[in-house]
Amino acid sequence: MAKHSKYKRKHKHYSLPEAGSSPGVIYIAKDALEPVIKIYKYNSEFYEVSELHNIEAVKNIIADKRFTYWIEVKGFDSRQLFETLAIDFNVNKLILEDITRTYQRPKMEEYDGYVFATSRMLYFDEAKNMDNIQVSFILMDNALFTFQENYEDCLEPIRNRLKAGKGNIRIAGSSYLMYALMDIIIDRYFEILGQWGEDLDAIEDRLFDSPDKTVMFDTQVIKRNLIGVRKVIWPERDKLNDILRSDSPLITDQTKMYIKDAYDHCIQIIDMVDSLKELSVSNIDMYLSFISNRMNEIMKVLTIISSIFIPLTFIAGIYGMNFAIEDPATGKVLPKNMPELYQENGYLYTMIVMGLIAVLQIIYFWRKGWFK
Amino acid sequence: MAKHSKYKRKHKHYSLPEAGSSPGVIYIAKDALEPVIKIYKYNSEFYEVSELHNIEAVKNIIADKRFTYWIEVKGFDSRQLFETLAIDFNVNKLILEDITRTYQRPKMEEYDGYVFATSRMLYFDEAKNMDNIQVSFILMDNALFTFQENYEDCLEPIRNRLKAGKGNIRIAGSSYLMYALMDIIIDRYFEILGQWGEDLDAIEDRLFDSPDKTVMFDTQVIKRNLIGVRKVIWPERDKLNDILRSDSPLITDQTKMYIKDAYDHCIQIIDMVDSLKELSVSNIDMYLSFISNRMNEIMKVLTIISSIFIPLTFIAGIYGMNFAIEDPATGKVLPKNMPELYQENGYLYTMIVMGLIAVLQIIYFWRKGWFK
Amino acid sequence: MAKHSKYKRKHKHYSLPEAGSSPGVIYIAKDALEPVIKIYKYNSEFYEVSELHNIEAVKNIIADKRFTYWIEVKGFDSRQLFETLAIDFNVNKLILEDITRTYQRPKMEEYDGYVFATSRMLYFDEAKNMDNIQVSFILMDNALFTFQENYEDCLEPIRNRLKAGKGNIRIAGSSYLMYALMDIIIDRYFEILGQWGEDLDAIEDRLFDSPDKTVMFDTQVIKRNLIGVRKVIWPERDKLNDILRSDSPLITDQTKMYIKDAYDHCIQIIDMVDSLKELSVSNIDMYLSFISNRMNEIMKVLTIISSIFIPLTFIAGIYGMNFAIEDPATGKVLPKNMPELYQENGYLYTMIVMGLIAVLQIIYFWRKGWFK
Amino acid sequence: MAKHSKYKRKHKHYSLPEAGSSPGVIYIAKDALEPVIKIYKYNSEFYEVSELHNIEAVKNIIADKRFTYWIEVKGFDSRQLFETLAIDFNVNKLILEDITRTYQRPKMEEYDGYVFATSRMLYFDEAKNMDNIQVSFILMDNALFTFQENYEDCLEPIRNRLKAGKGNIRIAGSSYLMYALMDIIIDRYFEILGQWGEDLDAIEDRLFDSPDKTVMFDTQVIKRNLIGVRKVIWPERDKLNDILRSDSPLITDQTKMYIKDAYDHCIQIIDMVDSLKELSVSNIDMYLSFISNRMNEIMKVLTIISSIFIPLTFIAGIYGMNFAIEDPATGKVLPKNMPELYQENGYLYTMIVMGLIAVLQIIYFWRKGWFK
Amino acid sequence: MAKHSKYKRKHKHYSLPEAGSSPGVIYIAKDALEPVIKIYKYNSEFYEVSELHNIEAVKNIIADKRFTYWIEVKGFDSRQLFETLAIDFNVNKLILEDITRTYQRPKMEEYDGYVFATSRMLYFDEAKNMDNIQVSFILMDNALFTFQENYEDCLEPIRNRLKAGKGNIRIAGSSYLMYALMDIIIDRYFEILGQWGEDLDAIEDRLFDSPDKTVMFDTQVIKRNLIGVRKVIWPERDKLNDILRSDSPLITDQTKMYIKDAYDHCIQIIDMVDSLKELSVSNIDMYLSFISNRMNEIMKVLTIISSIFIPLTFIAGIYGMNFAIEDPATGKVLPKNMPELYQENGYLYTMIVMGLIAVLQIIYFWRKGWFK
Repeated sequence: MAKHSKYKRKHKHYSLPEAGSSPGVIYIAKDALEPVIKIYKYNSEFYEVSELHNIEAVKNIIADKRFTYWIEVKGFDSRQLFETLAIDFNVNKLILEDITRTYQRPKMEEYDGYVFATSRMLYFDEAKNMDNIQVSFILMDNALFTFQENYEDCLEPIRNRLKAGKGNIRIAGSSYLMYALMDIIIDRYFEILGQWGEDLDAIEDRLFDSPDKTVMFDTQVIKRNLIGVRKVIWPERDKLNDILRSDSPLITDQTKMYIKDAYDHCIQIIDMVDSLKELSVSNIDMYLSFISNRMNEIMKVLTIISSIFIPLTFIAGIYGMNFAIEDPATGKVLPKNMPELYQENGYLYTMIVMGLIAVLQIIYFWRKGWFK
Repeated sequence: MAKHSKYKRKHKHYSLPEAGSSPGVIYIAKDALEPVIKIYKYNSEFYEVSELHNIEAVKNIIADKRFTYWIEVKGFDSRQLFETLAIDFNVNKLILEDITRTYQRPKMEEYDGYVFATSRMLYFDEAKNMDNIQVSFILMDNALFTFQENYEDCLEPIRNRLKAGKGNIRIAGSSYLMYALMDIIIDRYFEILGQWGEDLDAIEDRLFDSPDKTVMFDTQVIKRNLIGVRKVIWPERDKLNDILRSDSPLITDQTKMYIKDAYDHCIQIIDMVDSLKELSVSNIDMYLSFISNRMNEIMKVLTIISSIFIPLTFIAGIYGMNFAIEDPATGKVLPKNMPELYQENGYLYTMIVMGLIAVLQIIYFWRKGWFK
Repeated sequence: MAKHSKYKRKHKHYSLPEAGSSPGVIYIAKDALEPVIKIYKYNSEFYEVSELHNIEAVKNIIADKRFTYWIEVKGFDSRQLFETLAIDFNVNKLILEDITRTYQRPKMEEYDGYVFATSRMLYFDEAKNMDNIQVSFILMDNALFTFQENYEDCLEPIRNRLKAGKGNIRIAGSSYLMYALMDIIIDRYFEILGQWGEDLDAIEDRLFDSPDKTVMFDTQVIKRNLIGVRKVIWPERDKLNDILRSDSPLITDQTKMYIKDAYDHCIQIIDMVDSLKELSVSNIDMYLSFISNRMNEIMKVLTIISSIFIPLTFIAGIYGMNFAIEDPATGKVLPKNMPELYQENGYLYTMIVMGLIAVLQIIYFWRKGWFK
Repeated sequence: MAKHSKYKRKHKHYSLPEAGSSPGVIYIAKDALEPVIKIYKYNSEFYEVSELHNIEAVKNIIADKRFTYWIEVKGFDSRQLFETLAIDFNVNKLILEDITRTYQRPKMEEYDGYVFATSRMLYFDEAKNMDNIQVSFILMDNALFTFQENYEDCLEPIRNRLKAGKGNIRIAGSSYLMYALMDIIIDRYFEILGQWGEDLDAIEDRLFDSPDKTVMFDTQVIKRNLIGVRKVIWPERDKLNDILRSDSPLITDQTKMYIKDAYDHCIQIIDMVDSLKELSVSNIDMYLSFISNRMNEIMKVLTIISSIFIPLTFIAGIYGMNFAIEDPATGKVLPKNMPELYQENGYLYTMIVMGLIAVLQIIYFWRKGWFK
Repeated sequence: MAKHSKYKRKHKHYSLPEAGSSPGVIYIAKDALEPVIKIYKYNSEFYEVSELHNIEAVKNIIADKRFTYWIEVKGFDSRQLFETLAIDFNVNKLILEDITRTYQRPKMEEYDGYVFATSRMLYFDEAKNMDNIQVSFILMDNALFTFQENYEDCLEPIRNRLKAGKGNIRIAGSSYLMYALMDIIIDRYFEILGQWGEDLDAIEDRLFDSPDKTVMFDTQVIKRNLIGVRKVIWPERDKLNDILRSDSPLITDQTKMYIKDAYDHCIQIIDMVDSLKELSVSNIDMYLSFISNRMNEIMKVLTIISSIFIPLTFIAGIYGMNFAIEDPATGKVLPKNMPELYQENGYLYTMIVMGLIAVLQIIYFWRKGWFK
């Protein structure tokens, strides 16, 4: 069933916390990737990217307050990395757990000296399935740390803007950078929702052209993905709202104005998700009504053909019977018990009667609208 | 399927922001239309419309505070136009993005010296499909800018009222003009909802007269349109409420009284949308029950005819069998193994039995109510 | 379909505002009725009804503060009537529009010197369809205006109580009169909901006795009516709540105590509507399950009869075949290829086998529970 | 249909107010019962029950403040009784109407010198139908009046506890008595919900053993009852919350602590109602899927038998045809047009072919999983 | 039906309060277990577990404030145990009732000198059914009492952490211990929900491979379990929120920080429950559409075979009729009434016609897409 469908079913497995482990424990998964650390150092005139081998150096680097820094950490296979964060930057252990246990809802928390936030970044994997991974942010005075467990991302346009120095990305500080990253992650939702919208339209086309079981299957896959997005986008909205209402000096008023813009996008995504969900429900409804209609059509064919030919076959059966008369005198069998059989035009008359019955039935079904 | 339906399916495509672009960037679509700028200059005694070639002149024109001005901009193919707005009137770049990215929800935002608002204007396109486009407002002291990306609108009655000087449209200032435009846009919803209401009634008539697949299809189209309107009318309501509660000196108390009226209309539209949605769900329910009923009828015909004639055909089949007796003495075949065949009235009796079976079955089905 | 149903489908048409008309315009429909104006003048000792030809006189009449006045206006075909209201009693033009555009939700608004409110009065028209019309109230110091567009109402008991002087209706002032009228309009809902409750019970009875398509149809009609009532009763509740919380000196504390009572009735109506809606959904569910069950029964009849007789007919067909042997010596056809046919009891054995097959199948179906 | 079901359908009729009657009118139904008045006089050391013939004496009795009094009124056929309440205890006329119009939602209202409250008491009537009647409370300083329109109740355990002097029921005053009565009325809900839970489990058992139409019917009855309970228990919760937040000196802090307990029970009932409702929806879903499955099975039997035997019968029909050759020389009919009939093993071969066809079809259906 | 399903239906029975019993009564069930009391005495350097025979000794033990104590009570068959609690630790009787009536929703209540809270602990019983039991907490200054009615629990990891002295469990006081226990109980939800998630995935696999009735059954079982969890996890969330907002000095700020973490877990569980519920609804939808599709396929087989062979059988029947001509001259029967029978290639032509009819029908069904 549905083997040729575009979508593959995928079972999602969460790396859930081991029950009863202490809180605040850094979690390094078995298949964690080697950490890759890049540091983007920039101000209005300057821009430089370098790769670091360990995070110890960062503290000294970012002490130079003339620049803003983006420290991008990808891959978590280094307990020491997180411990350095705890020691050098006084980051709460619960946050380190939240960064490494990558199934957090989008949220934002203010701490003394830094702000912690998470987003969920969507992407289609090679099998065209949607997935979402966690991007964690630690916002400091003139630095922004970001963390994600694998190497793939959709942040390239931001790097390009940083490099090009377009807009006010190089002059508006670390909180604007956080906004820019969060915003591009949200923009990715639009793209993927747009993809699904087109898929749903294509499914609808199939519904009208040649519906089959894949309609149900594909629509259900999209519906589940939409439910997945919905689960993520509502806390995203709350997170942005928390940032808007935050008193933290780390988040500038200018950044808040832009966050308001991202918040509006978030609402639009919620609208879009709801619309697409309605669309998929509508597709399912139409598919079910299509099945019922098809059933009706199948039954109509059967009923018309059976109703016409079964009675005719019966008549033919009658005149196939072998009733005969035994001549009481001679004891011989005389084939005359069924007089119709020996009338001159018996066969003709029978055929005419059969034809009439068939025609009457066809008229009956015609008037009932069964041929439409 | 549904080829003769009044409605055509249409796939909606949004011009979504390019992921990762800077915020506040003016977006000029490839198929953007040549801008047409009209300025309506009026007060209680004076009324004049003129077309402008560029927007630079506006700043000087509206400096004359004895008049109220409506600057109507249609078509966005001019980056310079929006840049002039930013420079001459100090309009925020994020607003210029919102004006040119025409998929905003209705909203209202107060800024220093002006108020920004958007509405969504409904219309049926030539294929009878609903669409809605964005109308953006920038309300200033004695001027109102409106922006829409194409040339078609439903604002003609307002222009007529301006020209005629009826009511207090010429004396109540720019905020009243904004109200009047917003109100006529809302009134358009009534019209279109009324159209759908009539369509749903017509579909219901078809449901009782000659239901076919188009019932499902057309109802789904209307239901989706209703969902589309619902998505737009709730933020519209919020927008009007924001205007009502606004402290901005640009919005006069008199205007607010009228906005309250528009707000009431908005609530009535929400009510209407909900009613029509219930109506379409009810149509779908009745259609599905109609399909089931029709199935029952089809099956009843098949069952009645099969149940009557299949047993009769069997009886005819029996007396069509060729059982015979071989005379052990002569080796000759004597056709007497089936004695019924040689009884004097065998044929007659058989016909009577068959008739009885048929009559009994008809009575049985009659009493089961299958002929109703 | 459903021709003998008690209910008739009715398409509702609203007299919607002409898009773009000025706000505050008095709307006189083409089929507006001749206004009939009655004035009830009363106090604890006095009661008098008189009919007025125009409303100009009212101002002088109600200047006599020793009495309370109920000015009842039915029929709107007089623009001058409403203009007099605007001039003599300083009534806001938007209110006059609300009175004459009779599709307002129940609402209450306080103005300087008077209170404006609307109710929606239910009635069954001659075709047993529910309809609701608008009753508008303008409450003044010692006078109450009521407006409705046609002549029919359910207010007779109030007139009787006024005449009889029962209870405190003659001594409690104009706000109590407004309460009494609003309350009797609400009581009417109970009556009509009770009627529907009985109808739903009768439909349920039909469901168990002889369900047919009218079950679906009638239930849908009632369900829609309930949706109609629900749309009206929620704003009614809000209106009463607004009156309860109002600071207007026109509404006495005593009246508020009674309004609280009407508010409780309103809540009970909401409960009743919800219960009846559940009842109608339950009726529809049971009808659909009835259709499915009936289908099962139809198919069981077909399957039992076909399954028994089709194999038997096949056996009869076999022994109706004409296989024979050609005697290679004589070239004569000897009918002996099917030896069963020439066994002495071949016919009998065949009949017994057929009987056995039939009996076994009947046992099979019996044990499957298909005869229940 | 459903004649052997445990449940009987019952149509509920409300004694609704006569439209337009004055508010605050005592309503004595035609079938009102003779009032039975009992007074329980008690304190920590004393307990006495006596029956009163009229309520006039109560005022004097309860003047003795050393005792607490419970005045229990059952049966409303005495207008004078309620008038005495109004005169002797200054009870508001609207309350008397609320007591005698026994379709009030649970509510609590504070008045000067007393508190008015209502509960709804559930019971199964003799036909196992749920019903609920109103119990009204008037709480005074050292006395509690209760009113119910018929004689049956579930309050016996409270009387026993009063008599036995167990717990602090005899020392905690009139508000504690009111709590105890309300609490036992709520406890009754648990009992009845428990009964329905068991019924639903029994229905579920039937679903797996021998589902028939009563499954649908009985589940619908329980679902409606649950809806009925839900309608009553939410205002009950609000009532208890109102009592908790009440400032009335009549309700002691100790009583409030217990009311909190009753409030928790109320929440648990709401949870239970929701769970049972889910259970009944699940039963209905499973029943519908059972009908569909059964349909599938019926159709499979029909299809297998028809598909196997109809083609075979056709083959038998072919060899039952009477095609022959007319010898052009002699004009005699030679039965040789169908050569298969005269092959030596024609009959055998035909039977083998038929057998093969049947076997192939059986294999086909087997592999399709139709025999499972 | 569904006999081989992994799940067993289980009817839940609550030990509901006896209606009308006094509040605050300790409830000892008939099958209550012998109490087992353990006391864990620990501080940063010390750790000791001992089993107590009765609870009287506890008061003296916990007087030593240098240590923190966890008094774990399992099994309730001792009225004296609870009475000692009431006397020695001044615990409110209503709390004792709540502890022993083990159907409380999760809640938290502050009292003078202690905090009372309950959680619901999930586990799969041996039959793989989910159940949940109540764990009650009484938090005091340096001691935590926990109560559960049976011996099984999922708290072993906490005991291990206490023993190992890992993390700050031995130094953070009694409120941290309460947090740790509550948190592990919540973590258990993740585990069980994960189990169900895998079960739903396995059911989905079955849906695509070989769907049968167990799909419906198993999904319904999981859906009900999810509803059960949902009922418990929402009040759990509220409880944790109450603890977060509590002013009680017994709950340290550090503990609150961790409780915030548990609260986040709670929200994630709610998300997971909702997702899984959507998944089960989706499974049910797909199962129902599968049944409908299967019906269609069954009917298609029947219709194709019947439509092809019934008309053919009719034709065969025609030529099986025995129409003949009686020679008026000789009175002999001449078999020539049906001339087709005596044409030279009559049989061949008939077979060709039959073949054509069959081929045309096959083409017709092919083009309708019925063979797909």
